[in-house]
Amino acid sequence: MDKIEIIPIPLDSYVKQGDDIALLILESIKRFGIELLDNDILVIAQKIVSKAEGRVIDLRYVLPSEEAERLAYEHNKDARIVELILREGRVIVAYKGVIITRTRHGFVCANSGIDSSNVKGEHVTLLPVDADATAKIIRERIYALTGKIVAVIITDTFGRPFREGQVNIAIGSAGIEPLIDYRGSRDMYGKELKVTQIALIDEVASAAELVMGKSRGIPVALMRGLSYSTGNDGASTLIRDVEKDIFLNLARQVLQHH
Amino acid sequence: MDKIEIIPIPLDSYVKQGDDIALLILESIKRFGIELLDNDILVIAQKIVSKAEGRVIDLRYVLPSEEAERLAYEHNKDARIVELILREGRVIVAYKGVIITRTRHGFVCANSGIDSSNVKGEHVTLLPVDADATAKIIRERIYALTGKIVAVIITDTFGRPFREGQVNIAIGSAGIEPLIDYRGSRDMYGKELKVTQIALIDEVASAAELVMGKSRGIPVALMRGLSYSTGNDGASTLIRDVEKDIFLNLARQVLQHH
Repeated sequence: MDKIEIIPIPLDSYVKQGDDIALLILESIKRFGIELLDNDILVIAQKIVSKAEGRVIDLRYVLPSEEAERLAYEHNKDARIVELILREGRVIVAYKGVIITRTRHGFVCANSGIDSSNVKGEHVTLLPVDADATAKIIRERIYALTGKIVAVIITDTFGRPFREGQVNIAIGSAGIEPLIDYRGSRDMYGKELKVTQIALIDEVASAAELVMGKSRGIPVALMRGLSYSTGNDGASTLIRDVEKDIFLNLARQVLQHH
Repeated sequence: MDKIEIIPIPLDSYVKQGDDIALLILESIKRFGIELLDNDILVIAQKIVSKAEGRVIDLRYVLPSEEAERLAYEHNKDARIVELILREGRVIVAYKGVIITRTRHGFVCANSGIDSSNVKGEHVTLLPVDADATAKIIRERIYALTGKIVAVIITDTFGRPFREGQVNIAIGSAGIEPLIDYRGSRDMYGKELKVTQIALIDEVASAAELVMGKSRGIPVALMRGLSYSTGNDGASTLIRDVEKDIFLNLARQVLQHH
């Protein structure tokens, strides 16, 4: 029986622009007496990646467009934040104070993933520009510093249709195949499986959130013991094309009627 | 640092109607030399719950209605399975061979959760009638047999909008508060958190799937080390009311146009 362990990794200091996240993580891991192993998975919260990459915006310098002013008024929001939401994504639906967009990356989420929590004063963070690329850089940096081959997953917490509560998903990854493909596999009776593809890295992201916690301020988790395939695909593999998504197409039809 | 462990629990035998799942799990746990502890979480796949409860249907005795015949023809499906899909849920959208329903329980999923894999011959399983009630019964049975107070989560693997790949979610639970509520909580700068509620039991379900695996046939996982609140709410708490769900309302508007 192969058990999986998930270990919380607090960082020593607040992350700021230009910080070497790989190094900060390794220092913390060492401080806790843990030895990094090949095939370990490092799960990292979006917030510290955005901070390290300077994706922090001072709202005092944001000038809202007319469209942002109008949406902000309709939905009782800060027009400067709405301006950023519109710069980062295309509105899918705005309803009773909730603005759901599809971001430039393809994520469908509230407020284009813009977040004012855990940033000082009148600042907000934007999602990383290319979290797959960042995950790859961190993975290579870990290898350069330790000689260990790990996987890296960058996560954020999103709401979802149909169900209450938010869950952690993978917005970037490197060194781990995002999907387990069961298509063509057979069950113990020789029948095709109902489950066709498991979104492995989203499940790892959700698992890691269990030790990360928002108010405890633990931005990193180490997962050990999971069997996974190394691959070259990143988390962007999990973004469904608009044309293939039933609910995005329904939303589009409704919006065309208005 | 409190780490979390996830341990796969294979069962000795195939589960059949009337089986005592709690007892089967305890026997397996014992066989692997594990001692059950207070606050352990047992995560159980829907399939064995449905089998134990006799929610297995022999398709040879299912007579499709006209509506089922029509939908089956349009979407190239077995009319008998479509008949069961319609009995178990209300169609939200049927599109290119995919029939998405809202089940009697309130789950929005493909094919009303009906599954022909891992059941013999021309049989399929339906979702448990009331997985929260089942989770409660298993939890109480574990207590009666061992004196240990555990949480129980029953899971199934569902697709979701916007993202490729399926993930495990909680369809029933007992002894664990389904949501972590951060509303009103403050971050380290005194600002409100972006994340309002975490769907804890869905994250536990996804984490457990990492050791369960569809083709490996491991129907149970034991999670140890998670801090959680005991509560009386079950997984049905996570089902969003139709009126509150933006995408279900969009779907409804489109369907009214046709």
